[in-house]
Amino acid sequence: MASLQDIALSAFINILSAFAFFVAFAILRLQPFNDRVYFPKWHLKGIRSSPRLSGNSVTKFINLDWRTYLRFLSWMPAALRMPEPELIDHAGLDSAAYIRIYLLGLKIFVPLTILAFGVLIPVNWTGDTLEHLDVEFSDIDKFSISNIAKESKRLWTHLVMAYVFTFWIYYALYKEYKIITTMRLHFLASENRRADQFTVLVRNVPPDPDESVSEHVEHFFSVNHQDHYLTHQVVYNANNLAKLVDRRKSLQNWLVYYENKKTRNPEKRPITKTGFLGLWGKTVDAIDYYTAEIEKLSKEEATERERLVSDPKAIMPTAFVSFRTRWGAAVCAQTQQSSNPTLWLTEWAPEPRDVYWSNLAIPFVEQTMRRLMMAVAFFLLTFFFMIPIAFVQSLANIEGIEKVAPFLKPIIEKEVASSFIKGFLSGIVLKIFLIFLPTILMTMSKIEGYGSVSALERRSAAKYYLFILVNVFLANVIAGAAFEQLDTFVNKETPNKYPVIVGTAIPAKATFFITYIMLDGWAGVASEIVRLKPLIIYHLKNAFLVKTEQDREQAMDPGSLDFASSEPRIQLYFLLGLVYSVVTPIFLPFIVVFFSLSYVVFRHQIINVYDQEYESGAAFWPDVHRRLIIAMIISQLTLMGLMSTKDPKHATPVLIALPILTIWFHKYCKSRFEPAFVKFPLQEAVVKDTLERAKDPNLNLRSYLQDAYVHPVFHSKDIERLVAIDEEENNPLVPTKRNSNRSTPGGSKYGSEAGSEIE
Amino acid sequence: MASLQDIALSAFINILSAFAFFVAFAILRLQPFNDRVYFPKWHLKGIRSSPRLSGNSVTKFINLDWRTYLRFLSWMPAALRMPEPELIDHAGLDSAAYIRIYLLGLKIFVPLTILAFGVLIPVNWTGDTLEHLDVEFSDIDKFSISNIAKESKRLWTHLVMAYVFTFWIYYALYKEYKIITTMRLHFLASENRRADQFTVLVRNVPPDPDESVSEHVEHFFSVNHQDHYLTHQVVYNANNLAKLVDRRKSLQNWLVYYENKKTRNPEKRPITKTGFLGLWGKTVDAIDYYTAEIEKLSKEEATERERLVSDPKAIMPTAFVSFRTRWGAAVCAQTQQSSNPTLWLTEWAPEPRDVYWSNLAIPFVEQTMRRLMMAVAFFLLTFFFMIPIAFVQSLANIEGIEKVAPFLKPIIEKEVASSFIKGFLSGIVLKIFLIFLPTILMTMSKIEGYGSVSALERRSAAKYYLFILVNVFLANVIAGAAFEQLDTFVNKETPNKYPVIVGTAIPAKATFFITYIMLDGWAGVASEIVRLKPLIIYHLKNAFLVKTEQDREQAMDPGSLDFASSEPRIQLYFLLGLVYSVVTPIFLPFIVVFFSLSYVVFRHQIINVYDQEYESGAAFWPDVHRRLIIAMIISQLTLMGLMSTKDPKHATPVLIALPILTIWFHKYCKSRFEPAFVKFPLQEAVVKDTLERAKDPNLNLRSYLQDAYVHPVFHSKDIERLVAIDEEENNPLVPTKRNSNRSTPGGSKYGSEAGSEIE
Repeated sequence: MASLQDIALSAFINILSAFAFFVAFAILRLQPFNDRVYFPKWHLKGIRSSPRLSGNSVTKFINLDWRTYLRFLSWMPAALRMPEPELIDHAGLDSAAYIRIYLLGLKIFVPLTILAFGVLIPVNWTGDTLEHLDVEFSDIDKFSISNIAKESKRLWTHLVMAYVFTFWIYYALYKEYKIITTMRLHFLASENRRADQFTVLVRNVPPDPDESVSEHVEHFFSVNHQDHYLTHQVVYNANNLAKLVDRRKSLQNWLVYYENKKTRNPEKRPITKTGFLGLWGKTVDAIDYYTAEIEKLSKEEATERERLVSDPKAIMPTAFVSFRTRWGAAVCAQTQQSSNPTLWLTEWAPEPRDVYWSNLAIPFVEQTMRRLMMAVAFFLLTFFFMIPIAFVQSLANIEGIEKVAPFLKPIIEKEVASSFIKGFLSGIVLKIFLIFLPTILMTMSKIEGYGSVSALERRSAAKYYLFILVNVFLANVIAGAAFEQLDTFVNKETPNKYPVIVGTAIPAKATFFITYIMLDGWAGVASEIVRLKPLIIYHLKNAFLVKTEQDREQAMDPGSLDFASSEPRIQLYFLLGLVYSVVTPIFLPFIVVFFSLSYVVFRHQIINVYDQEYESGAAFWPDVHRRLIIAMIISQLTLMGLMSTKDPKHATPVLIALPILTIWFHKYCKSRFEPAFVKFPLQEAVVKDTLERAKDPNLNLRSYLQDAYVHPVFHSKDIERLVAIDEEENNPLVPTKRNSNRSTPGGSKYGSEAGSEIE
Repeated sequence: MASLQDIALSAFINILSAFAFFVAFAILRLQPFNDRVYFPKWHLKGIRSSPRLSGNSVTKFINLDWRTYLRFLSWMPAALRMPEPELIDHAGLDSAAYIRIYLLGLKIFVPLTILAFGVLIPVNWTGDTLEHLDVEFSDIDKFSISNIAKESKRLWTHLVMAYVFTFWIYYALYKEYKIITTMRLHFLASENRRADQFTVLVRNVPPDPDESVSEHVEHFFSVNHQDHYLTHQVVYNANNLAKLVDRRKSLQNWLVYYENKKTRNPEKRPITKTGFLGLWGKTVDAIDYYTAEIEKLSKEEATERERLVSDPKAIMPTAFVSFRTRWGAAVCAQTQQSSNPTLWLTEWAPEPRDVYWSNLAIPFVEQTMRRLMMAVAFFLLTFFFMIPIAFVQSLANIEGIEKVAPFLKPIIEKEVASSFIKGFLSGIVLKIFLIFLPTILMTMSKIEGYGSVSALERRSAAKYYLFILVNVFLANVIAGAAFEQLDTFVNKETPNKYPVIVGTAIPAKATFFITYIMLDGWAGVASEIVRLKPLIIYHLKNAFLVKTEQDREQAMDPGSLDFASSEPRIQLYFLLGLVYSVVTPIFLPFIVVFFSLSYVVFRHQIINVYDQEYESGAAFWPDVHRRLIIAMIISQLTLMGLMSTKDPKHATPVLIALPILTIWFHKYCKSRFEPAFVKFPLQEAVVKDTLERAKDPNLNLRSYLQDAYVHPVFHSKDIERLVAIDEEENNPLVPTKRNSNRSTPGGSKYGSEAGSEIE
């Protein structure tokens, strides 16, 4: 068991490494040639121009002003300085709400820490039990509940504090939910006109023998939403076309590159090879070759486009239906259209860049089947993922390698090599699995058939949280693989023993989790700010692949808050904090440090670096709240389990009310706030509609919405082709651009962004 | 253990008693003086006039035509003869759907019985295991799975049959759900104009300092449902007034009685006493006394009415808001109005006679608190109801009685009396509790705050089902009080043992449940048709209390299908049938007899006797379906438990898919059909609106809806007073009457019923 000294040493090392990261960051971010790595958000906003375009040749790349290095932590107050409304404006509500999770952590754990250090630590410290027992114990344990004798009156302190903590957390959670709800409603109310406010996504349009999908949709909604229906857009199955367009764009970049090259050096005609990446194959004239290739692709594209427009099978039974007013859209999204509730399914349209196009055509029955399959698959993945990994590990042993590659035999059989292989290979498979886990979970969510990127991320986060709960929290507390725990819980123990098993194991694991927090939570968060991976990749790309200015734009990877994998990790810290708050209060300061550090770092990152891919208006908050409630219930049950071994007479009757209250609190919050995240209240819709009518009475909404929900591949210059189909109006197009292709490089995407937001 | 002979004897006795009930019924129902007991439905419909008004003095009371007695079972084919559409027309969809539960039982269990007798019984019978074991066994066991050796290949038959049965039940359930859904949609579509089609119940209207509730509602809805809002009715807290009105009505009946008496015998002025029921007190002139009393009450009533109309506090923050079209109402009921989702809560208005008025004013927060309290209370009631009963029993022992009533001592101390008291008193408390249980559960549901009688009944049924499941099914299988089971399950056994405990106990209890079915299911159902209690009460009332023809009308108690307590009982039979279908197939014929008998009896009752109190359009079916799914899962888990002791190698892997499939099936059905029971599709609303506009273009909807949702006490002649408040229109009132007072005697209530349905 680790002593206080061990922990102090570990803390020292981790603080040192965090400090090292900050110093590295301070130096790196001041170099102009790193500007696109550390301030991409501003570049994308068009506010910051590349510093390399001005100045002399050295200062273009390296910052020689020594004074700037002295203020190497100045980014921290700077990060905190931007007020929240401006932050929402700058980075969107999703990001602002996301960093409020860290703030919520502080709000919960700072008072808990003060209370715990004022009350619980002295009570535990003077418990004087461990010294009189003939057991081994660490200094940490002297601050924990382990130092209190069984059936001691002192345990009442812990019972009372459990209630005090719980009510404080209710208060903090309730208030935060309320704030976020208000922020969301205010955000939605103050937003400018957006296509998705008027639009509803209609899925499972039933086939009609006499009409095309488009006609059927139009007839259905002109009858059933007579005064409100405006227009609609059908969805094409354009996955093929999207591939062709992508390839053509890449070829076009090469063409530009070679043309630039020729301009600079007109003597020498640039040549290339036809093979992979221009590395081998027949040598040809580059410009001629790419021109010809592009022409070929353009023709293919035109054929495919023709097919899409003419082939009724290319139209999916899905449509984006737009209404004259927000009220009409709100009504349609919230009501049931047909007596068969699996047809004409309506929901709020996600904003155009949030649409996950390839999932839009899954029929209802198939979707329920897919979800069943994925539920079973996820259960197996969570509890039995060790089995295939162990199998692969057993294949990748020394004998296996010798069989496949006999020539390696002499090397492998040396002792050093063999022990390396043994140690390394068994770890590497697991490591690879864990790295790919978020991707695997995301793929599973995609198979489940959700229609928007934000929904996919929320689903993946839910899966990841469960995985962490079982395979990090439980696995470390009970020390066993997940399927062994499953076996224990189902086959070997009675249900009332579960909390006891977990609860009694909790105090002993405190030092392990403290170390975990310092490594993953302190040093890990600090390393985030250096952006080592994007830094290296950017410079590699810059050195070898960047050919045009557009390429450099593309080499810049702002990244974004990865909700699907980072939110569940924060939840782990909440869970640990709550579980240890009463048992081992010395745990709490480590949690507080984590939350404050993360808050500053991520606030800096969302201001200067990350660029959100979509805006869901903090739609993830109900998930965050629910997982916090789960953490509370787990902590309350484990406390009951632990206390029942300490003071069986009082523990259960006194503590039983906590989980019941928590469930009720959850139900109450859910019914009080959750509708604001799912539905759009009619009152708000009416207010916005009225305002708009007053402000802009001559608005041509139809032309505004005309091409809002066109598949990205049909965009910009390609749009005219499609319009020909819906030839109802001849108004000139008002390009909204916001819906531009996700895969196009930043410039146009974010330029249009800013443009359309200002209106 | 009971042998086949025992069961045959029991069957003989029960068949005999069922037969006796039928003979008694055949004789009683033909007597004209019982006509109002056995054919009240027709009386209420006004189709059958009292046979006592015609004929000579003897045939008025007794049927002397001997030929009618010969065809004493003729009511059975008669009951089956009425086709379903006519039945729906005659008794409403609720009743028609209710007896389809019995039909569903037949659809499920007849094929199961045939299959089981064709396959499982021969396999079990030739198992020949029990004879070679040295254990006691009954003949029944030779037909059951107990007769198969462990790990015998024969067990595969049972595994396969479990799948065959399950898929057949899926098919039957799915089809039935589909039929009921279609029936409901068709019923709703073919209904005539009804006030609730246009009306939405709005709860939690927020207080406004400047406006009354009525003005606030009007302003809110004219803004947020601009083109659709028509009118509204506020809800008065008229519970006091209702009491006064009831008392005045009873006094008026007495007045009429004495006036009749005087008319018949003008010489003698009728006298009465002022005390309780006219039995003691001062002797006064009856007509003068009642006239004065009525006048006094009328004045009180007028004051109270004045108060209600003028006092703003008498208006509850609740309103019935009506719309111009069904579309408008459907939209409002399905959408969220305000950004605070606990205000302006909208839901479909229940039909006027279904409204449970006194629950309409409960605020949102209080409601969630009440539900939490009731959830805890119900848990305690289910698992610990034996504790207070045991306590009361211990009080009501011999010593206790001696203490309270020492004069009884000599009698009590006789041996016969004491053993009687011991045996009787311990049972009577439990019996009284069980008789009052449905009332207790209904009270709990009322406390939870549901706003319509139909919702209250559905909630009570859900509670009763859980109670039966724990205290009849589990208690008899495992033989222990509920709280002991809870203790066993939570503290003593691992979760995977639960199915094993229940599963292995199941076969041994077959004979007990067979006897239970014959007693409760056969004889009990047959006794229902004699209507012993209403028969006796009717004749008692007739002899002593009936004074006027109106009183006789009131003495007639048609009763109604008591969904809250009878549906959970049917579910018990489903559960037993499913649990025993594979294990002890000889069980199945008894279930089949129960379902066929019940089907005939209840079809007869709903045609001739019962009078439904409200019409919810089979809104209870999702509950029925869900409970059937629960029964399926229980039967599958117990089968897994039993099989795992017989054939541990195959049982779990082969059977594990069943509960997962069942849960998925449930989810699928839920999303496929349930919305039809909760929401009203806009398409249907538009169709009905269009039809109505074509049929009746000059309809004055406002006056039609004006008094639809007025509290019953304000009805009929009292209505003009209130209209003065909403003095927007001067149109003559079109009395819809259907909303007449629940407590007024049948005549006016049902007359209006028929009248308004015809339009």
